[in-house]
Amino acid sequence: MKLVTFRTGTMSRIGVADAGVVRGVSVVRDVSELLPAGIGMLEVIEAWDELGPVLRERTAALPTLPLDSVELLAPIPAPRRNVICVGKNYRDHITEFGRSGYDTSGERVELPAKPILFSKATTSVTGPTAAVEPHHALTSELDYEGELCVIIGRGGRGITREQAYQHVWGYTIVNDITARDLQRDHKQWLLGKSLDTHCPMGPYAVTADEITDVTALEIETTVNGERRQRAAVKDMIFDIPHLIATLSAGITLLPGDLIATGTPAGVGIGFDPPRFLSSGDLVEVSITGLGRLSNRIADR
Amino acid sequence: MKLVTFRTGTMSRIGVADAGVVRGVSVVRDVSELLPAGIGMLEVIEAWDELGPVLRERTAALPTLPLDSVELLAPIPAPRRNVICVGKNYRDHITEFGRSGYDTSGERVELPAKPILFSKATTSVTGPTAAVEPHHALTSELDYEGELCVIIGRGGRGITREQAYQHVWGYTIVNDITARDLQRDHKQWLLGKSLDTHCPMGPYAVTADEITDVTALEIETTVNGERRQRAAVKDMIFDIPHLIATLSAGITLLPGDLIATGTPAGVGIGFDPPRFLSSGDLVEVSITGLGRLSNRIADR
Repeated sequence: MKLVTFRTGTMSRIGVADAGVVRGVSVVRDVSELLPAGIGMLEVIEAWDELGPVLRERTAALPTLPLDSVELLAPIPAPRRNVICVGKNYRDHITEFGRSGYDTSGERVELPAKPILFSKATTSVTGPTAAVEPHHALTSELDYEGELCVIIGRGGRGITREQAYQHVWGYTIVNDITARDLQRDHKQWLLGKSLDTHCPMGPYAVTADEITDVTALEIETTVNGERRQRAAVKDMIFDIPHLIATLSAGITLLPGDLIATGTPAGVGIGFDPPRFLSSGDLVEVSITGLGRLSNRIADR
Repeated sequence: MKLVTFRTGTMSRIGVADAGVVRGVSVVRDVSELLPAGIGMLEVIEAWDELGPVLRERTAALPTLPLDSVELLAPIPAPRRNVICVGKNYRDHITEFGRSGYDTSGERVELPAKPILFSKATTSVTGPTAAVEPHHALTSELDYEGELCVIIGRGGRGITREQAYQHVWGYTIVNDITARDLQRDHKQWLLGKSLDTHCPMGPYAVTADEITDVTALEIETTVNGERRQRAAVKDMIFDIPHLIATLSAGITLLPGDLIATGTPAGVGIGFDPPRFLSSGDLVEVSITGLGRLSNRIADR
């Protein structure tokens, strides 16, 4: 099932997308009202054991809206906490990142022995077709990173590799947009990864049952139609079970937690000279079966 | 005003603490009920312009409970997003951290040119007297970091240095407990800083009007009664206005956001050989006017 958070008029709603149409299944919020109402995607995920069967049985009977007539928001527009991210999780990307001189860890081009884990602020999340702010005053080195994002369903701690996929509710796409100069100058990556609108997400939250083999998925990123990144999820260094086991060994995972699993080679700093993003550029990230993000860099 | 989140029986409540007593002002949640009710500290902070005057006027008339008869929780037990943290923000601590060989940035003992910003997962937050899990299976290098924590009131972006204190709702104490081996081995610090119970917080959320001059406050950390850290907030490299301006330049700050402002010299890895924490150790962090955290490292 492909779930979406979408807006029509002043309403923010949860819907089920299918073959060019969307069927609204709950009103999250009427933004013309003062108080929030109803349940959002986090609550849907949290109550999935009960809600999933209801949606499966009864959604088809609901009225449809053309998918292209609504504005899709990020499936989880306001995550419960920061998006968990994995750095340097594809071999070829490590090579290009090391070569770029942007890696200040002092250990260039070496495969990490353990996953590199950092986070993006919740306020960086934006929709799958939303404009991305260039933050010209703060950065002149704006870069893209197409990534597969895991959505946790059942939370927990001490999840083993073997149990890991039982805790995956589904998947979405994120573009882990990065201000390379801030990433480098501030040493730890939180700030360079967290500027407002620098985490386009969506278009769908796709339930895990739709994906037969997540490692078979392919990621592709284009800038103005030119292919920059293309890789298979199976080329990850630390696979999804490894990431979930590592994180949950000491951190209780929560329903709705988002884990962006790292980007393959082909980012802007990988080129010599680097090819950073400019206002007007259209960045698109697509993953087999998960749809496409399509975000233009705004003028300001 | 000193606000607390506290538990009596199955109730989680917000209260106002004063001279050894606490007056309950709202029921956040009756944990014996299925559904949450009422408002927590985040909602109090968000509605402070209206609620502050009400609390000031009417709290004194409410019935009191002895402060030592209730269990204090972290003032914000479940933050809206990760706790924002600042690394290496006191000169002497940078020297000890560089000397320890734990700094993998390749730039030892140098003052940072820009604030080093990272985050702690929301699930690491625990109460001011709660037991701290040692996570023996994951780390053998458990360390303490006493820190002043800023609580944001009015959110916003593009907050200038001059406006910064208008956005500070108040202050609390955090112990930024760190698994040094995870911090080092995973390069980015999220995991080593985020293990469950590794962010003791409290005991109070103290409103900014109670603190005449925050830079005059002093931080002291003891382990089993032995003083390990002592420093004045004025010795920060990047002061509170600098941190708020840097963060909010590109990240929209939200009411209730927590900024742990960095730790002074005297942490366990600063010693030669290092003095890490063991089960049974009592770590206490106190800051002038903000009270004291008092957390024992549990057996397991």
